[in-house]
Amino acid sequence: MVPERREITGFSNPLIKQVRALREKKFRKREGKFLAEGLRIMTEAREAGFVPELVFMAKGRELHPLANELLQAVANAGGEVIETSADILSKLSGKSNAQTLVGVYSDFAQPIAALDRGIAPIWLVAQAMRDPGNLGTMLRTGDAVGAGGLILIGDCTDPFSVEAVRASMGAVFTQKIVLCSWQEFLGWLRAGPGQLVGTSLNTATDYQEPAYDVPAFILTGNEAQGLPAEYEAACDLLVKMPMRGKADSLNAAVASAVMAYEVLNQIRR
Amino acid sequence: MVPERREITGFSNPLIKQVRALREKKFRKREGKFLAEGLRIMTEAREAGFVPELVFMAKGRELHPLANELLQAVANAGGEVIETSADILSKLSGKSNAQTLVGVYSDFAQPIAALDRGIAPIWLVAQAMRDPGNLGTMLRTGDAVGAGGLILIGDCTDPFSVEAVRASMGAVFTQKIVLCSWQEFLGWLRAGPGQLVGTSLNTATDYQEPAYDVPAFILTGNEAQGLPAEYEAACDLLVKMPMRGKADSLNAAVASAVMAYEVLNQIRR
Repeated sequence: MVPERREITGFSNPLIKQVRALREKKFRKREGKFLAEGLRIMTEAREAGFVPELVFMAKGRELHPLANELLQAVANAGGEVIETSADILSKLSGKSNAQTLVGVYSDFAQPIAALDRGIAPIWLVAQAMRDPGNLGTMLRTGDAVGAGGLILIGDCTDPFSVEAVRASMGAVFTQKIVLCSWQEFLGWLRAGPGQLVGTSLNTATDYQEPAYDVPAFILTGNEAQGLPAEYEAACDLLVKMPMRGKADSLNAAVASAVMAYEVLNQIRR
Repeated sequence: MVPERREITGFSNPLIKQVRALREKKFRKREGKFLAEGLRIMTEAREAGFVPELVFMAKGRELHPLANELLQAVANAGGEVIETSADILSKLSGKSNAQTLVGVYSDFAQPIAALDRGIAPIWLVAQAMRDPGNLGTMLRTGDAVGAGGLILIGDCTDPFSVEAVRASMGAVFTQKIVLCSWQEFLGWLRAGPGQLVGTSLNTATDYQEPAYDVPAFILTGNEAQGLPAEYEAACDLLVKMPMRGKADSLNAAVASAVMAYEVLNQIRR
């Protein structure tokens, strides 16, 4: 059962231009849509209940059974399957060696007020995270530790960029994503249970000392600056990882992962 | 005391072309040199005993006291300080918003036979690591956990690329770096003490179960494929991190960091 397909072969086709524009944040924001590519990530999305409204596939390629299932799901949901050339697929994905599938999804960031903190014992929180690879990696780690989602505070890089989605390896679809201000976050946080734990150099507390409460909100600061003093002051706990070398800090995605596994390990004991 | 400086303002200057070529692996390999940029990383390098043979600085910029010390160290070591324009600095570093300093260093990868495993309880080992950000992050983590260095096996991305050096935040200078084949590594490893620990999906052993021996060699496989079966078979231990979500793996740099902190935490207890 192969669903009906439309073929587009021209670079100047308006739909191709429109979809390619989703590689830029301002167009993603305007359209409320984003791109995800590759069978692995798109299957993860489908298992999490997300089906693209449009999917582009390379014309004439043999498809994996999971890809056929995906195309069928798109058709069933009223979406459209478009066959195109490898060149156009590369143009859409921005990779010379393009994946065979590129999907257009609706953006699903949610307001913090809609977040149910009770669904998970761990939540990751990032302040002014600038690197899409770090942000995507945090989503992937969040999925691995059974976190509920990632709360993005302040001027973070877009979690729906092609680079962040790729680095998340599909976790962008399994983790709740919230973008909000520090004041909104604090207001919401303090209206319910939860311990806010910041990683910082400005503390003597080793990250393995405290017994963490759940839900634990693990707060990681900007890659270059770390957490602002005001953020640190609002934390229930500041902790630091032992640093045995010359450097004084870890990569931000690594720091949040080491912390998240410590909290998970305490939960497991 | 400001050391003597030469000024270069032309994009077509042969030295500028030659240095800019160090952004490409084949030229780095041919020249045995690489680039590092920014006062923070270059100061870390100096503290670790590495002074660039050439340093480029933006003409007319006010210099930080540490930058003056660095330039003096370059002059004392017989190196050269070159003043140039912000445009040329950007061209050298490949960043539109260039650092004020770019240095040319001699490559210092060493043969595995020269490695003294006794200097550190932890060593990181990577197989076919392809992403420069991951590789640099592993170096940074290695520095943080007090590892001795990073052993790169097979077809890894170049640890001396601008991207890897940047992601290492200077740890490229504090960690020993070895590039070798799997057979060379195994021959060397088995000629002395050391436990080879692989992270893998093909095991039921939780990473917190074993009591690790030192020196521990933490082996992480290629980002997409994980470790080849032959590599897994040669490990003394295979372990896995708990995965509570939909995905079955962590980012490679995150996985090696979570493992390295577990070993460090056992050493600390």
